[in-house]
Amino acid sequence: MQRIEHRACAGGWQDVYRHHSATLGCDMQFAVYLPPQAATQALPVLYWLSGLTCTEQNFITKAGAQRYAAEHGVIIVAPDTSPRGDGVADAEGYDLGKGAGFYLNATRAPWATHYRMHDYVAQELPALVEASFPATAARAISGHSMGGHGALVIALRNPGRYRSVSAFSPIVAPSQVPWGEKAFTAYLGEDRAAWLAWDASALIAGADERLPLLVDQGEADEFLQTQLQPQRLQQACDAAGHPLTLRLQPGYDHSYYFIASFIGEHIAHHARALRG
Amino acid sequence: MQRIEHRACAGGWQDVYRHHSATLGCDMQFAVYLPPQAATQALPVLYWLSGLTCTEQNFITKAGAQRYAAEHGVIIVAPDTSPRGDGVADAEGYDLGKGAGFYLNATRAPWATHYRMHDYVAQELPALVEASFPATAARAISGHSMGGHGALVIALRNPGRYRSVSAFSPIVAPSQVPWGEKAFTAYLGEDRAAWLAWDASALIAGADERLPLLVDQGEADEFLQTQLQPQRLQQACDAAGHPLTLRLQPGYDHSYYFIASFIGEHIAHHARALRG
Repeated sequence: MQRIEHRACAGGWQDVYRHHSATLGCDMQFAVYLPPQAATQALPVLYWLSGLTCTEQNFITKAGAQRYAAEHGVIIVAPDTSPRGDGVADAEGYDLGKGAGFYLNATRAPWATHYRMHDYVAQELPALVEASFPATAARAISGHSMGGHGALVIALRNPGRYRSVSAFSPIVAPSQVPWGEKAFTAYLGEDRAAWLAWDASALIAGADERLPLLVDQGEADEFLQTQLQPQRLQQACDAAGHPLTLRLQPGYDHSYYFIASFIGEHIAHHARALRG
Repeated sequence: MQRIEHRACAGGWQDVYRHHSATLGCDMQFAVYLPPQAATQALPVLYWLSGLTCTEQNFITKAGAQRYAAEHGVIIVAPDTSPRGDGVADAEGYDLGKGAGFYLNATRAPWATHYRMHDYVAQELPALVEASFPATAARAISGHSMGGHGALVIALRNPGRYRSVSAFSPIVAPSQVPWGEKAFTAYLGEDRAAWLAWDASALIAGADERLPLLVDQGEADEFLQTQLQPQRLQQACDAAGHPLTLRLQPGYDHSYYFIASFIGEHIAHHARALRG
């Protein structure tokens, strides 16, 4: 593992590392923010999953999260959004292939070779982080759009692994919207029954762990009706009695201006759960 | 004037406008953050000047300033860093021509035709802002690197026009460092005496107004020794008895991670002066 960026920020360090991922079969980059408290103690970790087209850079340069992480003493780890490199399958368009891993384990060629972002984010990366940094095993997970989908699905599929979960503008029902239908058809095949294991709204009914969900959604989000449809998650949670706080934020769109406006509240939410 | 971006942020609106600048003889874009208080009252304005290669976008996407502007009720206006467009002179390299206007009025061909960023920032843009938005005539100015130079020089050349001035990592003595020597030779000609009217460290001696200067400088800044040399400003202020708070920040580099770490303190500083 090689550190390729190292920048003072909010009293701590915003770093970027490159390493070889055995899970993905390629070299990967991830960002880690170490708040000042990390110099003297082990801290809990918030995993942030970014959306379509993003790398590990978007969140660390645009969200303004570091000052809140410093305030609450939380490490933030932000991975890339797909496997990378010349040998990795890709496709035309921004919503499939590189930059669009959807945080699942693909089962269909040519994707199954490298596209195992679920196992990378849920298993390999935390093991690496907890072995390499002053990190405890107290974990939280959040993300935006495709990464909001990833955060919800990974938390729901791995009960006991995360103390808290939240999402900004998540794709809550990928089986039923164009982004998800395109990606799941490619990564998982035509059988829609297999898709439900990667669909937050479908997973809610069988969730053993009643981990409360915090979701912020901008009402002026340009993808609200076509791709996001948060009411599907609301209906699934209502039916299952699963705790959900869905906040519709008037005026806000799908951009990082929205994330930057509420990331402080999300980090405070996670910090409470991580300390508990 | 046409609004081309309009995004909810921190309870207010992060907008971008395009307009024709008579001063520059070209179309220009500038960003304006309107905090929530602007819906019901006129507010003071902080002008932010960005550095080499930047546009109006860098500060608004990376500095995380909006939440502080909302907290203090300050409008932030961030112009582009040079004239733009097909008819505008340019040069090879990132440090001359487009993206590198140095906030001066050029006197040499081909630059003199459009490169009048001093007059644009000090005169035309405030007149437009104060006529178009709920803005008072209480003004503050700040910036980064080339924009820190711009903030210091524009404040020093226009006594009474700004209530406060600050800078991050400014080029404090452009007449004596490579970035400034290259730009000033092109924009102002070979006569170094003419350069001093655009050099903060040279202007201090003749400053009528004792406007206190707040300067933050990262000690790990990769341009510290070659281009920035804040001790030249310190010496000029010491000699003239001009008030300067120069803060050397250990570990910080030249990036927006540095700006994001201290922009809250700068906005609080300006808000105190603007309310006074």
